[in-house]
Amino acid sequence: MSATPGGATYAASGVDRSAVTEALSALLQVVRYRPPPTHGRPVDAPGHYAGMVRIGRETLAVTTDTVGTKVRLAAQVRRWEEVGEDIVGVNVNDLAALGARPAGLVDTILCDRPDAQVFRAIGRGLDRGLRAAGCSLLGGETAVVPSIVDGIDLGGTALGFFPRGRAPVTGRRVRVGDVVLGIPSAGVHANGFTLIRRLLDERAVDLRAAGPGGRASLAEELLTPTRIYSGVADAVAGREEVHGLAHLSGGGVRNLVRLRPDVEFILDRWPAPPPIFPYLQALGGLTDEEMFQTFNMGIGFVVVVAPTHLAESRRRLARAGAPDAVPIGRVGKGRGVRLPEHGLSYLRYS
Amino acid sequence: MSATPGGATYAASGVDRSAVTEALSALLQVVRYRPPPTHGRPVDAPGHYAGMVRIGRETLAVTTDTVGTKVRLAAQVRRWEEVGEDIVGVNVNDLAALGARPAGLVDTILCDRPDAQVFRAIGRGLDRGLRAAGCSLLGGETAVVPSIVDGIDLGGTALGFFPRGRAPVTGRRVRVGDVVLGIPSAGVHANGFTLIRRLLDERAVDLRAAGPGGRASLAEELLTPTRIYSGVADAVAGREEVHGLAHLSGGGVRNLVRLRPDVEFILDRWPAPPPIFPYLQALGGLTDEEMFQTFNMGIGFVVVVAPTHLAESRRRLARAGAPDAVPIGRVGKGRGVRLPEHGLSYLRYS
Repeated sequence: MSATPGGATYAASGVDRSAVTEALSALLQVVRYRPPPTHGRPVDAPGHYAGMVRIGRETLAVTTDTVGTKVRLAAQVRRWEEVGEDIVGVNVNDLAALGARPAGLVDTILCDRPDAQVFRAIGRGLDRGLRAAGCSLLGGETAVVPSIVDGIDLGGTALGFFPRGRAPVTGRRVRVGDVVLGIPSAGVHANGFTLIRRLLDERAVDLRAAGPGGRASLAEELLTPTRIYSGVADAVAGREEVHGLAHLSGGGVRNLVRLRPDVEFILDRWPAPPPIFPYLQALGGLTDEEMFQTFNMGIGFVVVVAPTHLAESRRRLARAGAPDAVPIGRVGKGRGVRLPEHGLSYLRYS
Repeated sequence: MSATPGGATYAASGVDRSAVTEALSALLQVVRYRPPPTHGRPVDAPGHYAGMVRIGRETLAVTTDTVGTKVRLAAQVRRWEEVGEDIVGVNVNDLAALGARPAGLVDTILCDRPDAQVFRAIGRGLDRGLRAAGCSLLGGETAVVPSIVDGIDLGGTALGFFPRGRAPVTGRRVRVGDVVLGIPSAGVHANGFTLIRRLLDERAVDLRAAGPGGRASLAEELLTPTRIYSGVADAVAGREEVHGLAHLSGGGVRNLVRLRPDVEFILDRWPAPPPIFPYLQALGGLTDEEMFQTFNMGIGFVVVVAPTHLAESRRRLARAGAPDAVPIGRVGKGRGVRLPEHGLSYLRYS
């Protein structure tokens, strides 16, 4: 994870992924308890996007995530709808990566003081996200904790299920020869903001100036809410020919390794990333290696399908709201993720 | 919510409950989306401890809560096991109040830097809590967000279910003549810490001095983890004679109003609160009114039963781990919660 001399890395921006991994391992090592089967039967899917538990005949998936430091940018320009919507996106997309349909969300708002106007904007964003995902708001928690939080932190937990007859899509059925379809993102979504904010600060960039996309201010472009893939995932999950689903969030293309570590995802048709990505790369002097493992680089969700069903899968995805799904690569023998045109290889998720 | 002149109130300590209520209403007003029944059918239980949704034949309950500013005290004395255990307690007790059995928890740790030793201690506490609750850890989120959080914030979300044949215990069946049983708390649990910390700071109290309970330091006494009521609730929930369950967390005795607003809970046999409560009351010059709506005052969980089944219910609770359950009052005609010996009446939950 080296960068060009003088270039920024995500670790240098304040997020040291290996320190997080070490701390988390220390925690997980001592959590040993397994309840009796009368208290739900956890389903093993190590390293996956969501935890699963069987209750009666249902398999439930639960995932929790926060919007992260994107909220700091929201605070700077006083726009809260987008990050409100992100509470939904960051969570339901992790369910979508298992092929789970969202059944409910609870939100968590930590703040230093409650502001009705800000909360209303967050609510509008939540509503838009829930609508896009087909998901109920089941509750939430609001904590006013000025001694802990500066400004606002937004997070949530989503509960998903598998409609009758559908099994979780873990990626185990991915095989050599499969086609990797990519569905475009709506921008940087909610990842990499600790780095983005540091670059913007250091270079004293004017957030209100036109963004590289040319249609909105830089702030608006960066705040664009996470695209929600629940509907498109729901349209293909559970089908025989659909072998894997992935949400390219934190970790970028490395997320594909979560599906199956013993094949190689050869991404030899990656589309040119939208202008915001080369803009950020130039701003920070970031390497391609850093870019592809920090940002989604224009592709937010991946569907791995049997080559025999490529055209049909694309039609299905188009009908469900993703006419822009395109082949971005294939599955080969080997390990990890490779982007041959960029000379990049990643062997592990983290 | 007035206090004696010079006395502290929870609002004055930095938590203005009405401002929170106002902000939250602004948010909820605009979250209007209701998904089609193919995406889970939300179960109405307004104002209750957890959200519920029906999926297939199962009713699931989801609740989310944080440990709040108790973590600041933990940081001061560098003890993290207790608050780790509280992540479980604050959540599964809200499930218990609906009669739901916990099936899984996800935790959320926000921190300014990941420290493996601290995380290990939190893990030990989590494990102890999960064991006490009979609950799996299904996953979690760790966010290193120094720009948002000072120190550590701990929270989680719990998923619960209703074993075959058991309906949610909403309190609707509570009736005049019922007996109110109280199960003791293990101290202040995880409520009122913004006020507690302010009092300790202002009076420059030595946290390492012996606490009012006389068996441990003041810090240890205050940090004692939330008692977990999952097992006792599970032993009585769903029984015909058990009409209501309540977790006395934030809001203290006001929580009873959540069960049924059109009866009066007459708490005329409230046991003498353990020494930590009169100690805090004296420290802050707090009114009884403030004490009973901020702290659990020695009773952490309530079971409302038909008087015909009082002895049997107590035996059942004793076998499940609560031999210390005692009658603390009864249900009468009227509205709200009354503590006649203290001259107190509360009409609403918030």
